[in-house]
Amino acid sequence: MKACGLIVEYNPFHNGHLHHLNQSRLLSNAECMIAVMSGNFLQRGEPAIVDKWARSKMALSQGVDLVIELPYPYAVQHSEYFSQGAVTILNKLHADYLCFGSEHGDIEEFIRMEKWIHSNEETYKQVLKKHLNDGLSYPMAHEKAHKDIGPKGETLDLTKPNNILGRQYVRQILEQNTSMMPLTIPRIHNNYHDNEINGPIASATSIRNELIRNNNWNDSMKASVPSSTEQIMNDYYEETKTWHLWELYFPLLINRILTSNRKDLQAIHGIKEGLENRIYQAAEKADSYTDFIQRVKTKRYTWTSIQRIFTHILTNTTKDEMLQLRKQEPEVRILGMNQTGRAYLHYLKSKELEFTLYTSSKSPYRYQDHVRRINHAYYSILSTNIRRQKSLQEFQSPIIYT
Amino acid sequence: MKACGLIVEYNPFHNGHLHHLNQSRLLSNAECMIAVMSGNFLQRGEPAIVDKWARSKMALSQGVDLVIELPYPYAVQHSEYFSQGAVTILNKLHADYLCFGSEHGDIEEFIRMEKWIHSNEETYKQVLKKHLNDGLSYPMAHEKAHKDIGPKGETLDLTKPNNILGRQYVRQILEQNTSMMPLTIPRIHNNYHDNEINGPIASATSIRNELIRNNNWNDSMKASVPSSTEQIMNDYYEETKTWHLWELYFPLLINRILTSNRKDLQAIHGIKEGLENRIYQAAEKADSYTDFIQRVKTKRYTWTSIQRIFTHILTNTTKDEMLQLRKQEPEVRILGMNQTGRAYLHYLKSKELEFTLYTSSKSPYRYQDHVRRINHAYYSILSTNIRRQKSLQEFQSPIIYT
Repeated sequence: MKACGLIVEYNPFHNGHLHHLNQSRLLSNAECMIAVMSGNFLQRGEPAIVDKWARSKMALSQGVDLVIELPYPYAVQHSEYFSQGAVTILNKLHADYLCFGSEHGDIEEFIRMEKWIHSNEETYKQVLKKHLNDGLSYPMAHEKAHKDIGPKGETLDLTKPNNILGRQYVRQILEQNTSMMPLTIPRIHNNYHDNEINGPIASATSIRNELIRNNNWNDSMKASVPSSTEQIMNDYYEETKTWHLWELYFPLLINRILTSNRKDLQAIHGIKEGLENRIYQAAEKADSYTDFIQRVKTKRYTWTSIQRIFTHILTNTTKDEMLQLRKQEPEVRILGMNQTGRAYLHYLKSKELEFTLYTSSKSPYRYQDHVRRINHAYYSILSTNIRRQKSLQEFQSPIIYT
Repeated sequence: MKACGLIVEYNPFHNGHLHHLNQSRLLSNAECMIAVMSGNFLQRGEPAIVDKWARSKMALSQGVDLVIELPYPYAVQHSEYFSQGAVTILNKLHADYLCFGSEHGDIEEFIRMEKWIHSNEETYKQVLKKHLNDGLSYPMAHEKAHKDIGPKGETLDLTKPNNILGRQYVRQILEQNTSMMPLTIPRIHNNYHDNEINGPIASATSIRNELIRNNNWNDSMKASVPSSTEQIMNDYYEETKTWHLWELYFPLLINRILTSNRKDLQAIHGIKEGLENRIYQAAEKADSYTDFIQRVKTKRYTWTSIQRIFTHILTNTTKDEMLQLRKQEPEVRILGMNQTGRAYLHYLKSKELEFTLYTSSKSPYRYQDHVRRINHAYYSILSTNIRRQKSLQEFQSPIIYT
């Protein structure tokens, strides 16, 4: 039984994701489509607009067969750890393919690039380090290093977010020495950071923005997502009266920072080089979430890296804890499946797996305490009853889609 | 120049407090009336309904000459530390008298009682310990110990809250070997815990309750406070749109607890004997602040002692920090004064004081970091601008009442 892995966030699931899912199935000819999906907080250090259960439902309703959680210690990270976690999980699940969307769209060049880097690793690292020491952000330093010493005539643009991620996926596949075959499909019709919907393939950012602006689904929004996404989003809002947006967490974030002492802040994952002082001082003055980030941002600390730090503050995730949680390979936790997904799990069990497939976050799930805290942070903006109910879902069975 | 000390919270300042102030002046015949007042959090582990600046203004407008802050490490404590801090400060300020209101009203019996305890200390401590080990709360254990082995025919009822405090004041005066003379006046017409206003001398609790219920000053409320209290409270509400009530801090408290790990909670001042588990589990289920306390309360842990712990969680005050802050004698910080207060300070300076009289919380004020955190916690329920403005007051000059 062949399986193809996808690495996703589905925030929310839209037509571009559907295209990716369908094209990946075609290209790989796999029977089981496995999505490794970030949980309640995302790679860019944001709360997902609706929780991981709602997003799993969207995925299953459109044909994903098995949804696995990318755990927080890998999900809320820069592209290297993010890819490492996701590829490791797909490898454990014996996925035969990994298919990602990219701006470039040609897998050969990704592979060529990674092989080149691999054989020029020392030089590459030195140049990278130099740019980092000059105060550049991580992605900027990578791009510069490539420009400086990469092979000439290369057409892979490493300033594009999906090329950046794709490159890391291929790197992990090669480094982990897996038998997984990387595939890529070109992204169509939209830019990742688009703020407005321009047709039926729109960015998740633009869909979220319009939803927040209108608090209602207008025609262009309806045209950009499968109807199940609209339904599931509406159900979630009906129940919670909330979209999970950073602005709503702003008072909690500020309160957490201003009632922390310096040592507490220094212990938080991602805080270094005296950044705790900058954050504290900005927190005393910030009028809004956006204003807060603007005050902390520097050339070195990008919007995204600051958001990740804010997420770690909100969830009280320390350096020590992060190290501890990443010491062993990621745990594999099922969020949802359909009949094909279930059949695939049966097939997997015939392979005598050497790890536990978790169907809930109960003991001995290693992230149990941490995930409980993350959920409390994520759901803290809801009313008491809904918050409690939503938090309990973590310890119940996965979604079975029939 | 003679001075008389009062130990107060003024939450808010009412006719009973005015009576206490005037009678104390009469009884002591002192020229300067010094109020040592709790700051933004109170002895019973509650936020004060309005901040310490508003309450200082109330005091000054009714004739208090000098308002000194009882620092948090003494204010949010059981009666022993509370009294120790307040008496130490009054002694440093060379107060000649300390006059407190009590249900009993006869100072001789307080002194007799303390002398008896002093000469029977070992036996008393043993009996006290036995009752504490039986799971009784601190005040209950004291009362039982007195009943068991105290002198017969005693009329001092140690279940009454103001007798309990008065007893501790007298004890501190004797133990610290000060030359301060204790005085007491009988409290009139109301019980400390009264929930409803019954005439012009009403309890602070009843005034707060009616204010919250009506959100307006009706005739019986107006009749129970000086008009300046009403004015200052109205001004505060106008500015902040808020009364500082525990219920408003409930989401922040819950969020803090549920995003703490066990070690964080264990480190909080007042948490022992596995209480962190009880608190965590209750926080997961509680529907409201009151519900939360009810779930945590036991025979041993009274409502008040739990509220104090909740305050320490809200302000992130740890055992280590509390020890550190209480290692040296309390700092003396002026919140407000009138001309008489200023004259008294001049007179004091002629005595070559061996400590700093702080007029703001600036360096080297030892509680500087802590007080900043406390204020952030206290003002966290206000809108950003007001929060910031109110927090800044800490580092400005005291109130000068002319």
